[in-house]
Amino acid sequence: MLLLHPDDMINETQAQISGRRLKHLVQTHQITVGKILSAGFIDGLLGTSQILKHDNKKLLLDVSFTQEAPKASPITVILALPRPKSIGRILQSLTSLGIKSIHLINSFRVEKSFWQSTHLNKEVIQKELYLGLEQARDTLLPKVHFHRGFRPFVEDLAPKVIENKRGLLAHPYSQQSLKSLLYQQQDLRPQEVLAVGPEGGWIDYEIQKFQEIGFFPFCFGERVLKLETALTALISRIQF
Amino acid sequence: MLLLHPDDMINETQAQISGRRLKHLVQTHQITVGKILSAGFIDGLLGTSQILKHDNKKLLLDVSFTQEAPKASPITVILALPRPKSIGRILQSLTSLGIKSIHLINSFRVEKSFWQSTHLNKEVIQKELYLGLEQARDTLLPKVHFHRGFRPFVEDLAPKVIENKRGLLAHPYSQQSLKSLLYQQQDLRPQEVLAVGPEGGWIDYEIQKFQEIGFFPFCFGERVLKLETALTALISRIQF
Repeated sequence: MLLLHPDDMINETQAQISGRRLKHLVQTHQITVGKILSAGFIDGLLGTSQILKHDNKKLLLDVSFTQEAPKASPITVILALPRPKSIGRILQSLTSLGIKSIHLINSFRVEKSFWQSTHLNKEVIQKELYLGLEQARDTLLPKVHFHRGFRPFVEDLAPKVIENKRGLLAHPYSQQSLKSLLYQQQDLRPQEVLAVGPEGGWIDYEIQKFQEIGFFPFCFGERVLKLETALTALISRIQF
Repeated sequence: MLLLHPDDMINETQAQISGRRLKHLVQTHQITVGKILSAGFIDGLLGTSQILKHDNKKLLLDVSFTQEAPKASPITVILALPRPKSIGRILQSLTSLGIKSIHLINSFRVEKSFWQSTHLNKEVIQKELYLGLEQARDTLLPKVHFHRGFRPFVEDLAPKVIENKRGLLAHPYSQQSLKSLLYQQQDLRPQEVLAVGPEGGWIDYEIQKFQEIGFFPFCFGERVLKLETALTALISRIQF
């Protein structure tokens, strides 16, 4: 799917693209005048675009947006900052799953150097979110928030994040299984906030702080999964 | 986790390793005499290994296996052969999720060239399975079967694969949601066989053949997910 932005629009029904998206289109589609491609307007509707004109540097499209984007996931994700080389893939995959609110936070076991990575640059992050939207044929850009202090986050902000929601804290040593937590409120499920720790897990102090503001620790099977796999499995299990 | 094989054992309690696993250990751990590492014996138990002696080329370990491996997933996976560059990652991730039986099959939309890929070599596949086991701290190697003919597979073999099990066929255009299928037999769930098509989906003929032998088509949300994400989400939803 081709994701269009306000800057691409040259008038109400025509858009012009160049750069990465044009390059990607040329690699994956036959670009011929008249061809119709599925399209979406960022933070707006889905629809189609028809190629009007093209050369090596730009593509002129006639666009029409009529369809609602897929339903967003109601889950908010709180995640200890992953190692830089995984961040892009993880944000892309959360975006493709429809997550719209992501808090990347500090934790005792997050290496300090991770916060200096160029992978956290706004443009780099945004590109990954776009790729996730394009993958899932979605248009609504997730909001990604960074919190470099664990305590200010958990004391001041997290209570607002879980207001009217249920906080679920992934913690391998918990006695409570995710299954039993979800069955407790099977019929009238509140929206959920899922908090997942760093490699090696949350430390006791962090678990205690999350519990103080109402998070429920839960365990999820005996297997140690890659972060991306674990997040997908958890979100799928909670959401569907 | 260090996964040991019968060939590594030099007597009943001592093992010697070299090559990839030694290299990986040196990269991720401090290798000192006396150090204890978690270990597993392929197709056997979990336990510990203690470093007795080491040099650049080999490592001598005292091993003890006492603990059961994590429970296997009861799900059998049938998958249209993915594109070569994804096969490794997908097999690794299925293995880490505990899947023990995987059938990679032909389908109309699988490119013929995929079957010639070196990524299907036995050694290449086995390495990915080992990595998946090490990730999940599991020991039981999955069985991966290849079926280059769709019709012989679906007519002769698939009926045996779903015997006493329930066949679930991922099909985006189905009217039946996975949720409703799973709720139908919520209390007494049979084991499941999950069949997932190629990029672009199964063709009508293939869906019909699967249905003839008892598979239930289902849809799973409006989002288009990467194969690895989709498989993880489906398995998690069916299993937990």
